[in-house]
Amino acid sequence: MKTAEMMNTYPAEVNLDRDLLTRTVDALVACAQACTACADACLSEDTVTELRKCIRSNLDCADICATTARVLSRHTGYDAEVTRAQLQACSQACKSCGDECEQHAGHHEHCRVCTEACRACEQACNDLLAAIT
Amino acid sequence: MKTAEMMNTYPAEVNLDRDLLTRTVDALVACAQACTACADACLSEDTVTELRKCIRSNLDCADICATTARVLSRHTGYDAEVTRAQLQACSQACKSCGDECEQHAGHHEHCRVCTEACRACEQACNDLLAAIT
Amino acid sequence: MKTAEMMNTYPAEVNLDRDLLTRTVDALVACAQACTACADACLSEDTVTELRKCIRSNLDCADICATTARVLSRHTGYDAEVTRAQLQACSQACKSCGDECEQHAGHHEHCRVCTEACRACEQACNDLLAAIT
Amino acid sequence: MKTAEMMNTYPAEVNLDRDLLTRTVDALVACAQACTACADACLSEDTVTELRKCIRSNLDCADICATTARVLSRHTGYDAEVTRAQLQACSQACKSCGDECEQHAGHHEHCRVCTEACRACEQACNDLLAAIT
Repeated sequence: MKTAEMMNTYPAEVNLDRDLLTRTVDALVACAQACTACADACLSEDTVTELRKCIRSNLDCADICATTARVLSRHTGYDAEVTRAQLQACSQACKSCGDECEQHAGHHEHCRVCTEACRACEQACNDLLAAIT
Repeated sequence: MKTAEMMNTYPAEVNLDRDLLTRTVDALVACAQACTACADACLSEDTVTELRKCIRSNLDCADICATTARVLSRHTGYDAEVTRAQLQACSQACKSCGDECEQHAGHHEHCRVCTEACRACEQACNDLLAAIT
Repeated sequence: MKTAEMMNTYPAEVNLDRDLLTRTVDALVACAQACTACADACLSEDTVTELRKCIRSNLDCADICATTARVLSRHTGYDAEVTRAQLQACSQACKSCGDECEQHAGHHEHCRVCTEACRACEQACNDLLAAIT
Repeated sequence: MKTAEMMNTYPAEVNLDRDLLTRTVDALVACAQACTACADACLSEDTVTELRKCIRSNLDCADICATTARVLSRHTGYDAEVTRAQLQACSQACKSCGDECEQHAGHHEHCRVCTEACRACEQACNDLLAAIT
């Protein structure tokens, strides 16, 4: 990931803390990938019928994290209201998906790894939310 | 768009009003396309330097509307918290983008058309939010 | 959809036939929505274990159609090579997904409707490909 | 990124070389983020009028890389035709965007860093294409 390098070459002011932003973008991108992979791994399990809700949570979380990563990768015409609202939605999606994956973490390693990605991403979103005035 | 037709073939319960959901998904998809096209049209204007914030709003709104349309197109394992939070973020993105585009609507037809798409989508999101208990 | 209206307000030259482009963007957007909904409907079927490949095809096709719709919604700095290659990938994704959904069209109405969306989108992509010199 | 960890927990056969797949997914995700950030950085440059084509290339490349990363993150119901065609489109998008960014790499550090991300991603796509029989 070249997140920090790209942020440091932005030619105008970045409105939020750069380290916090970089950490959050990287957590979002990692969580989106993990959720996409977890949905696919769940789909191939023998017990797929018990994993329907997990797959759906994964798909939502992947889409929401990917979009939030893009919003945070842009600094031009910063809009605190949109940034805050999207981060809140993303924090909720990561919490819901993490809670769902955690229930299957004992049986499926992909759900265990994905829970870690969701928890880390939820924390990063909450940390950034706390920094938005 | 086959939104209604697809929704009516869903094999289990749909938790929200189908007409309202269909109208919202269609408004989201139309707004995402209009915002993508408006960002590109702004980019080709002679006065692009005055449209920077508009382009950025368009890009965010396109991403957020596309993701929200996907969340609403899924009914399996419905999660009211995620749905509500993403709709709130989308309503805010449409409001911000509509406000920004409206300032240029007198000079640029694409901003005028895009304002209409954003206002319609914001209204649809708010109507659906009011229906989520 | 405001696809035609937005295209007609683009301030510079559009390199491809506007009617053909509009028809293709609309087909892509409709196919992306149908595939997202079909994946979710398949996931809620009792026979989900027989629909694994169909769900995966739907998810790929939704992503690829959504991206192709965005590429075609932009006219600034037109690049025939990228446009052609992405259309070819999209035509293939629609063919694969249509073939897979068609096998389940007799049992699941959502697969039947989704097959129609995939076939229409594949045809639109092929028609546009034929127009790119 | 938990790409390798997620791939190693997939419960069925992965059809392509896991190291090569992991490297490609990571390059795609990094390139998508760099291109999103480069489009935004270009938009804030004083010389934005000279960077219109670069911004458009960045937006296309970001969308195409993100979609390709998702296709490669799924292994269920592997389809060589779709995988190959999407990789070819992605290789072309990275080449076009890398060529465009490279022209501005002497003046803008974000274009220089983004060129690196595009070249690395194009190479990873080509390496994976060579492995698809």
